[in-house]
Amino acid sequence: MGEAVSAFVPGHITGFFTTQPDPDPTKAGSRGAGLTLSDGVSVTVRPDDATSIVLNDEAVEMAPVERVLDALEVTATVEATAAVPLGAGFGVSGGLSLGAALAANRVFERGLSTNELVTIAHGAEVQSGTGLGDVVAQARGGIPIRLEPGSPPHGTLDGIPDRARVEYVSFGELSTADVLTGETDHITQAGQTALSRVVSEPTLGSFIYASREFARETDLLTPTVTEAIRAVSEAGGQASMAMLGETVFALGTGLSDAGYDPEWCVTHPAGATLE
Amino acid sequence: MGEAVSAFVPGHITGFFTTQPDPDPTKAGSRGAGLTLSDGVSVTVRPDDATSIVLNDEAVEMAPVERVLDALEVTATVEATAAVPLGAGFGVSGGLSLGAALAANRVFERGLSTNELVTIAHGAEVQSGTGLGDVVAQARGGIPIRLEPGSPPHGTLDGIPDRARVEYVSFGELSTADVLTGETDHITQAGQTALSRVVSEPTLGSFIYASREFARETDLLTPTVTEAIRAVSEAGGQASMAMLGETVFALGTGLSDAGYDPEWCVTHPAGATLE
Repeated sequence: MGEAVSAFVPGHITGFFTTQPDPDPTKAGSRGAGLTLSDGVSVTVRPDDATSIVLNDEAVEMAPVERVLDALEVTATVEATAAVPLGAGFGVSGGLSLGAALAANRVFERGLSTNELVTIAHGAEVQSGTGLGDVVAQARGGIPIRLEPGSPPHGTLDGIPDRARVEYVSFGELSTADVLTGETDHITQAGQTALSRVVSEPTLGSFIYASREFARETDLLTPTVTEAIRAVSEAGGQASMAMLGETVFALGTGLSDAGYDPEWCVTHPAGATLE
Repeated sequence: MGEAVSAFVPGHITGFFTTQPDPDPTKAGSRGAGLTLSDGVSVTVRPDDATSIVLNDEAVEMAPVERVLDALEVTATVEATAAVPLGAGFGVSGGLSLGAALAANRVFERGLSTNELVTIAHGAEVQSGTGLGDVVAQARGGIPIRLEPGSPPHGTLDGIPDRARVEYVSFGELSTADVLTGETDHITQAGQTALSRVVSEPTLGSFIYASREFARETDLLTPTVTEAIRAVSEAGGQASMAMLGETVFALGTGLSDAGYDPEWCVTHPAGATLE
């Protein structure tokens, strides 16, 4: 058993999604599409007598990470650093769960496969109500299209064969759990329409257009987000809202051109990996 | 229509494989496992009146690449540079096919998805008799386990959640077509045994052990390859033979420690991408 093992998990901005509940957490999840980001989460797992989780130097409670360690039957100190904002639609929770699974499997020599670890992390997110589609997207990398919900072998992914510079500005948090425990039929209907568009035309332009339509139709836009998307559009760019956070993302230099002072990164070609 | 677009495809060393013929090329393929490599193939596609293919500055005929361009209904100049030896078990043919598909889709704005491009490149390899499992592995990256043959949605992949430094020495070429058109029942039987081992224990150690067993049982080893694998083993390392080439690969510094002067790279975390 080694001293400590680290994993990197790309961030994930969801452009649109459906909710697909199922009693089996490996079949539950969502359809949709998003961008994985070179800004992500680094997770270090160190065997310890009890489990504790530290995120950006602060002790935190994170139910899905605890579920992952329980599933692997280990206790450990999990230290994570997120290069993206928390609670703002970047998949930090999925990143910690998947990163903890990959690193713990290695440090405790559990001998599980990639698909098995993805399944554990996905199930932990679903059961904790913290996410539906981030983990499978973050395990793939690139620009994932989630065709069917769930983890392997149930979930099915495709991708947009492109890469991009991505700018983002976060104005605040939105609770994934609050939205997901409310009425979600209209979200799923709008998400299905957006998915059909992107499946028939799997390009970045089509993705961001479908995402913007989705944000509008689901009434998830806040005034600040609406204003930023409009400003990017008026400056000739393309932007939408990260699901679920009060966050605007744009392709290329969309937010800079509109006078914002965004963070920026690029789409991440790889899925989660040991460091 | 842009001027020229480039894609990078990781190299792929197959450790063991089965052959799974099927009249439908998207269902045909192989099971097995391998390492994708940071040494790979860069492919640039430039629209042109007729199709021509240049590999490492030499004009070549490559049936699968021509099939890919035909499927996309385009003609182009394809210029490729391979950082790995040709005909020696590194998936150069699959790399050119997949890279041409990705780059041509972009430069000609064909609007296909990643899975569709993988399917076109895989089918072109199968129909040309040049490969069975490289394309789907090279589209995934990492250390792919091919559970079920074929391209999406038929093929199923898992992975070994690890990464490694990889050394290799190539002593010569072996023709994939010659082996694949011969009697392959014993290969498939040995490949299935190796796969069972790696599925039950998806680790690098188990992969290289299973690969060595496979090479022995299929009588594909040449005297030079046998000697190199033995030398690495005696120096305390782990090596096997790349399928199909007169090539030995080792984890870590296995070949250096045994006194060889190998090339080296690392497993590639990402699948094929536009550059």
